[in-house]
Amino acid sequence: MTESLFYLDIFGTVSFAVAASLMAYKKNLDPFGILVISVITSVGGGTLRDILLRNYPIFWIDNIIYLVVIIISSLLTQIFIKYISRISNILLIFDAIGIGVFTVIGIKISLNFDLHPLISITMGTMTAVFGGLIRDVLYNEIPVILHKELYATLCISGGVVFFILKYMAIPVDINYAVSMLFIIITRIIAIKYNLSLKSLTLIK
Amino acid sequence: MTESLFYLDIFGTVSFAVAASLMAYKKNLDPFGILVISVITSVGGGTLRDILLRNYPIFWIDNIIYLVVIIISSLLTQIFIKYISRISNILLIFDAIGIGVFTVIGIKISLNFDLHPLISITMGTMTAVFGGLIRDVLYNEIPVILHKELYATLCISGGVVFFILKYMAIPVDINYAVSMLFIIITRIIAIKYNLSLKSLTLIK
Amino acid sequence: MTESLFYLDIFGTVSFAVAASLMAYKKNLDPFGILVISVITSVGGGTLRDILLRNYPIFWIDNIIYLVVIIISSLLTQIFIKYISRISNILLIFDAIGIGVFTVIGIKISLNFDLHPLISITMGTMTAVFGGLIRDVLYNEIPVILHKELYATLCISGGVVFFILKYMAIPVDINYAVSMLFIIITRIIAIKYNLSLKSLTLIK
Repeated sequence: MTESLFYLDIFGTVSFAVAASLMAYKKNLDPFGILVISVITSVGGGTLRDILLRNYPIFWIDNIIYLVVIIISSLLTQIFIKYISRISNILLIFDAIGIGVFTVIGIKISLNFDLHPLISITMGTMTAVFGGLIRDVLYNEIPVILHKELYATLCISGGVVFFILKYMAIPVDINYAVSMLFIIITRIIAIKYNLSLKSLTLIK
Repeated sequence: MTESLFYLDIFGTVSFAVAASLMAYKKNLDPFGILVISVITSVGGGTLRDILLRNYPIFWIDNIIYLVVIIISSLLTQIFIKYISRISNILLIFDAIGIGVFTVIGIKISLNFDLHPLISITMGTMTAVFGGLIRDVLYNEIPVILHKELYATLCISGGVVFFILKYMAIPVDINYAVSMLFIIITRIIAIKYNLSLKSLTLIK
Repeated sequence: MTESLFYLDIFGTVSFAVAASLMAYKKNLDPFGILVISVITSVGGGTLRDILLRNYPIFWIDNIIYLVVIIISSLLTQIFIKYISRISNILLIFDAIGIGVFTVIGIKISLNFDLHPLISITMGTMTAVFGGLIRDVLYNEIPVILHKELYATLCISGGVVFFILKYMAIPVDINYAVSMLFIIITRIIAIKYNLSLKSLTLIK
């Protein structure tokens, strides 16, 4: 599972980088600005988690693959912006996968530190949403997580699911998968329900 | 004194959480957004202090009481918002107590690290005001501490008082109490003087 | 070279503090707010670098000279604001020196941690530009580095120059000097070219 989590992590990183690049492009940033935003959005949450837990070395400093993947994803998004813009609904699904993966990875790492479940859930949620919060601050917008209820709260719910299953002694690999799917599916449902209500779109 | 400082710390945390929840409510954030703002305002300063000093584990990660107290305070504030809005002047006094307590706690922790008094005073002030600075940034407002003179400067003054008394060999427990009261009282005086001038209100 | 780097570091710190104070003055901040902005702009980048690399103690906490130099620079700038405003073009050159020095110092420190060159260059660039990014966020402006191409990218280019020369086995002291001058000179050229285009001014 650890290895498949790594691949999922890379997949989550790619989708965050693509979604962030698309959003930044719509804000008329220049190519380098778009790249900076993509990096910050993709690694921001995990970086804060690692600093708070003293989980050194910070993941993207230790393993060059993260920056490389983000740079390539961002450049390709900018080159193929026309085609990718057309599938921005698919990006919402990618983003949903991203927050599911990142929440579970944050919880997994926090388990190494013997923390209270409430803190572990906070770490998981932070891993998923903090990069986006910094992105919104850089845009001078009030962060999405402060006024869109069904985003961070779904990460928290996924964390609660994880710890309920953990106390029921469900094998941890199955538990990771179930919690992750819980977040991804509820997020996709939230998007589907609310797209018509125009209240939960990631890409404004 | 260490134990009474702990209770004061909790009291400071509660008042910061209540004041932050009230402010966030007036900004029309949803309940979860209000909670996030309350947590960030209440623990932000101490978290930066702990990271800068490498004072691990970070206080609120090590002891669940902080998050629990903030969550309860924020929820109760939201439930009883009608009654609490009426006593918002009392909240300014709570906030004054909060910055007094947090400055002294920041200085106390920095004493373990054998730092220059100027750095210790910076750490104390940062503990008191940095959470509010992040809060203002999240609201897209120019932070209060950048344009209201008698807020952070009173924390700094309290720190100067502490080190003057320390060099005069005043017992440290008395010194903590005096410095804290100095900040709280000067802050309350500043509020009283300026409320009519409409220049120093915490709750705009 | 290490000693001359220290003096250059202080010189970079002074010019960042002076430039930040001048900008903050134009935003009508009060004296204390100007001081806070100067400190954050000057030490912000190096602080994030030290936290990410776990390069403790953080440079300005360990050595009081940084804060002292910033406070004196900021106060003198505020006192002699009339005269300094007239030479704001010179400040752009000071700022260019600052980013050159800080990039090289960031790279130098990262070399102690045996990192991939891409990460070292990121650390160098972050040291140079992150303080300014926080400053812009505090002003509620979209950070300069997100929409002015020839600022952070010149730091990155200087880092690339450094690693090319390093692989060519150029002595490291010469390498530091050449990379630093590369950044400073290209930045000054960028300013000269673009001042007339009104697209690259630091002081808006």
